Order: sequence, then C-alpha cells, then structure tokens
Amino acid sequence: MIEEKLSEILKIEEFRIRGFLKRRVISKAGKVGKAELYRLERDAGGYEQGTVIVIGEEPKLIRGYPKIKRVLVLTPTIEKHFHSIPKVGIEEKMNGYNVRICLIEDELVALTRGGLVCPYTTHKAEEVIDRAFFVDNPEMILCAEAVGPENPYVPKDVYDVRSLGFFVFDIMRDNRRVPIKEKLEICDSYGIKTTTFFGFFSKNEAPKEIMKIVKRLGERGREGVVVKDPEMRIEPLKYTSSESNCGDLKYAFRFYNDYGVHFFLSRVVREAFQSFEWGENEEERSKRIERVGKNILEPMIETIERVSRGEKIGERVTLRVRDLNVIHKFQRHLRRLGIDASFGEIKEENGEFVVEMTRYYTSTNDKTKSILEGGTWS
Amino acid sequence: MIEEKLSEILKIEEFRIRGFLKRRVISKAGKVGKAELYRLERDAGGYEQGTVIVIGEEPKLIRGYPKIKRVLVLTPTIEKHFHSIPKVGIEEKMNGYNVRICLIEDELVALTRGGLVCPYTTHKAEEVIDRAFFVDNPEMILCAEAVGPENPYVPKDVYDVRSLGFFVFDIMRDNRRVPIKEKLEICDSYGIKTTTFFGFFSKNEAPKEIMKIVKRLGERGREGVVVKDPEMRIEPLKYTSSESNCGDLKYAFRFYNDYGVHFFLSRVVREAFQSFEWGENEEERSKRIERVGKNILEPMIETIERVSRGEKIGERVTLRVRDLNVIHKFQRHLRRLGIDASFGEIKEENGEFVVEMTRYYTSTNDKTKSILEGGTWS
Repeated sequence: MIEEKLSEILKIEEFRIRGFLKRRVISKAGKVGKAELYRLERDAGGYEQGTVIVIGEEPKLIRGYPKIKRVLVLTPTIEKHFHSIPKVGIEEKMNGYNVRICLIEDELVALTRGGLVCPYTTHKAEEVIDRAFFVDNPEMILCAEAVGPENPYVPKDVYDVRSLGFFVFDIMRDNRRVPIKEKLEICDSYGIKTTTFFGFFSKNEAPKEIMKIVKRLGERGREGVVVKDPEMRIEPLKYTSSESNCGDLKYAFRFYNDYGVHFFLSRVVREAFQSFEWGENEEERSKRIERVGKNILEPMIETIERVSRGEKIGERVTLRVRDLNVIHKFQRHLRRLGIDASFGEIKEENGEFVVEMTRYYTSTNDKTKSILEGGTWS
Repeated sequence: MIEEKLSEILKIEEFRIRGFLKRRVISKAGKVGKAELYRLERDAGGYEQGTVIVIGEEPKLIRGYPKIKRVLVLTPTIEKHFHSIPKVGIEEKMNGYNVRICLIEDELVALTRGGLVCPYTTHKAEEVIDRAFFVDNPEMILCAEAVGPENPYVPKDVYDVRSLGFFVFDIMRDNRRVPIKEKLEICDSYGIKTTTFFGFFSKNEAPKEIMKIVKRLGERGREGVVVKDPEMRIEPLKYTSSESNCGDLKYAFRFYNDYGVHFFLSRVVREAFQSFEWGENEEERSKRIERVGKNILEPMIETIERVSRGEKIGERVTLRVRDLNVIHKFQRHLRRLGIDASFGEIKEENGEFVVEMTRYYTSTNDKTKSILEGGTWS
C-alpha cells in the first residue's frame, strides 16, 4: 500500500522502495493532520536527504534542500563554476538552521534539514509568517534560516532578532528554486523577511566584492555569503568569514568529544586558504593565528575546568512559546533525534511561557571526567 | 605445512591460523637467510601487531612492541596506574621510529614497528651495535628508537646524532622486558647507547619532576618521557612536551590531506589538558595558543604557497650508506609500504654513498592543486 504510493510519488520502482524502507533510507516522519509523512534519511534515487513525501488527501513531494558547495579560493572558483553566465548575485549566509516552511494538509509546518517537522520551529514560524502567502501560493515552499537567541539548535546573538526569526533565502516552486529577483519581490509583498541581498556583480568584480563583504560581516560576528546564479539554474556556492570558521571551532572544541573530527579539519583548512588568497601581512596573519589557536584551546580548557569543578557539560538555551503543548511535543522531538536535554521550571512572561533547556554533551563530559580521574588516552 | 609451524610457534589452533592467513592478519614478511618471516598486521590471538614469526633452522617468535598508553594529566593518573608499587623510573621518550634489533639466522636485523625488516635501518644498526652483545645474548632483542637527521621516516635534528643513531629503551628476553637497572647495565657493558634515564622517583614526587623534565626537554625541541615500573611488570605510560605536540601538528598540517584527522584532534586535546594541569598564567597560555595556532596554519599556508608556485609537495631526506645494494633494497621496501618516493643522484663522500630521497604526499598535493584551480570542497 504505502510502497505503492511512495513508488508513484517518487517515480521509483516498488521493489526499490521496499529496499529503501527496509534499510531505513526512507523512514516514517510522523503525521500532519491525517497525512502520513515519510522522509529520506540520505541522498537516494536522485532525491536529496531530507526529502519529505506526504501521503494524504493530496500526495506531495517536498525535496530536501541541496547541500551548497564551498569555495576555498574565490579566484578562479567563481569564474569557473559560473562560467556560462555573466553576473552573480551575492546574499548573506546566516548562521542558524535551515528550515523549509510549507503547507501540509492546510497546516503550516517547518521541516528541518533532515525532513522532520520541528514543533518549536513550526510554532515560531506560525507567529511570524503571514498566512496570506500560503493562501495565495499553497504550492510554494519557503526555504529560510531560523536564527536568534532562542534557538534550540544554534543559539546566536549576532542578529537583530528577539526570539527566533526567519529569513528566507529561497522559494521552491515545483521543486525548483525561483530566480533571485522574483523571490525578493514575492517576499517583500507579503512582508516576509529575506536574508540581506548585496546585489548582482560581474564575475570579475565578485571576488573582491565578496572579500570586502565577508570581512565586514566577520567583524560583526556574522557568517558569510552565498553566491548565486540570478536565475537559480546553476548551483550556488558558499564562502565564510574567518570569525565564523573560528566560531565553529570554538563551539566544537567546547564539546570536543561529541563533534566529528572532520569538522575541525575542514575549518582550519578554510582559514589557511583564506589567509593565502587574501595575501595577508604579518600582523593580519598573526591575528588569524591567535584567533585560530584561541578558539581551539580556550573552549577545551574551559570544558576541562568546568568538569573538574563537578559541572556537567552542556549548553543552555531559552525557549519561548505561547502554548505549553509545544514544549511537550518538542521534548518528544528531541528524544527522537537522540538529543539528551533537560528542562527547567516554566515561567510566565507577558502571556508567553519561558523555559530554560540544557542540552548535554555526554561524550565530552564522560571522556573529560575519565581523564581527570586518571584514565589514559588510548 | 606453514600453518602447522605457525600454529606450533604461536600456540594457536591451525584452523584459526588459516583464517588469519586468509584475512591477511598474518602475512609473509620476506626472508632472512633461509628463514621465512611472517608478521601480524594487527593485534590478534593475544599477540601484538608487528609480532614476527621466524620459520627457519630454529623457529623464533619476536613479539610486537606494545603500544604505550598516554597520560593526559599526571595527577592522579600516575598514582592510579602504578598503584601497587612505590617508585617509578623516568626515561626520555625520543622522537624517531621504534625498531627491534635482533638476531635471525645469525644475521643482525632491524624490524620496524609493523614487523618488516627495514634494509636501511638494518644496515645502520649493523654499523653501530656491537656484535659481541648478540654473541653473548643471542636470545635478546634490543628495542631502540632510531633517531637522527638521516632518518627516512622521521628526520630530526634535535639529537646529537650525525646520521642515524640507536638508543635502546628496552631489552626483551623471553618476550618480557627486563628491569630498568639490568637493561642499563647490560647496554653499558657493551657500549650500546640508551635513552636518557632521569632516575627513580616516588609516585608523589613524579608529577612535579616530570613537569620540570618535560618543560626542559620541550625547550630543546625534544619529545617527552616514558614512566616505567622499575621491574617492568606494569605497562609504562608516556607524556609529551607541548613543543612535541606542536611539532606533530606542524608536520601533519604540512601534509593536511594525507594525515588522519584523529591525529590532529589528539594533539590539541593533549595541549588543553596540559595547560589545565600546569595552571598556566595568562602569558604562558597565550604563548601556547600562539604555538598551537602557528603550527596549524603556517605549515598549511606554506603548502598552499608551494603548490601555487607549481612545486610538488614532499619531504626531502638524505640517506647515507656504505653499500649501494642497501639503497636498492630500501626502494623495494618503500614500494611494499606504498610510499611514493624518488631518489636523486648518488654521490660518494669519504667512502660512503649519499643520496637524497624525496617522499611525496600525493593526496595533499592533488587536493591543494584542485582547490587552487577552482575546485570546491564538498
């Protein structure tokens, strides 16, 4: 039954669907209204990881947001990658988490990158996204970065956002991303915020322009840019500031045993290529060296100090909701993701409920503790 | 036939030996005289990786040198690990490669950690190790660090060695390591060099003493110490200087795409625990931060610069031999190890042959080149 429907929607033979289900390439992703959701846990059959299949009143396919490739040196990469077009658009890449906001069975839902409905994100999106947009464009999907301090996954204070804001960077229609200008116009007409658009630049201006933009963004602790084909036919590229790379290092080294080692290496490699391309003088280079060193060692030492004082390593985030049910659903969502978190006392503030969540990094905690108690590093 | 002999020597059932041979856990390791050598490519059946089995006139088993566990914080690890004994011996840990020098079919051979006979190392060991030692003690195995500038694996200038020297840190007899004092006496009586022995210390003095020793060693660019049970019944522990950890980083980041990512992480974790335990002041800590940052970024930037100038990334080492055959055999040995190297012109110098070898790091070379030519980092 289900196999048949999935086969029809994905246009993949039923015996392959059965294989995907068995190997959990496709898995159940909960319900919305009466519809049953399925998701792709990794790239398969020509679909991206996070692709969602809705089996309901009207079957629907919501493709996963594709991974954006990274530039390590702007010259000649931009010229080479966009060789068939004259100009590129430059937009800010914000540091939060990627969500797809869309209508499923007439309900507004926010899907995470992995293809699950996040109850907290959905609740917050409902508050700020004008429903008129979906009334007029029920088939469109808003691809947005969810950023702000009350962000359970990537809490950041660097944006002018009170709790959790949504900044659209793409609109998907018929599973294709619409041209930049059209996206900006559509969002503007519904009062939907977009990520900063810096303009269109010829390919030979672009590297210098990006360097300037990224330096300025970095000074304000912000992440970087995405370089796009104005028509969105060629895949975009991303490029980040040194401060963002180092911010990643800082975060990951605070929880050094929970993060994949590839995470560390990729960040320092970015720094080396950027330093090379920007032709830094001695002072700039030594500042970068210090920044990298600091953001590796200091968070680790702080973690060791905290564990030695008997603290449990974790990260605290404030969540704010209008409906207590959301907290309850969000706790189930975290369990499903295998995230270990505890919640504090629920407080009322101007008709909203505020609760402190602590996310634990058990592996780093236990490893650090065992070493401090005299364990060896094998 | 072979299975039966291996089974007898290793005291492992024949059917298991067959499995080991099939899965290359045990593999052929060449010939010495008429004897056929086999080696363990990984820990198995209670034997260490690098264990060598000699099938010849007199069958012989040469156990692999066991991996030494690492201390990250001296207190309480030393107390805990050596809880049943009052004092520990402290010796220098030198930075070269571990070899086992022994007699096989009356020939002196140097076995690498992996259990292969290295022709170059064997040739050099023949020059400096007094044969009288093996005439008197044919059953003993000298476990030594091979260090010096003319070292094909880990070239270092920090030791007072002209070409390649051997410093014994353990003697194995009946596959057990002899007590520290006895080892020192035996080596001394044959004029065989040993790694520096700093003395025996009570367990509560040891951490402070080690810290002092390791700081001094670090200032001279040297690696660290091994902490031992004087009787060699309890497994030793190792502890290294910040300069050594950073030297490792420098080397690995020069060839950033050839080294395992775990290599990077483990080094910086060592630095964080050391900084924590040594209770550093702001100046000391910021020096460490700079040292770590420098040794990560500078070698990578240098590599990028070299590739951008069209150079091929590699490491140059000088080899010096008395017999040209050794070079030929060593080339075959490198091929067997899958090491890509080229050799320069052979020159004669005071009756010796000198040749420059360049070892290539193809993966780093190709990755860097592809990025500089506009490739993206997936």
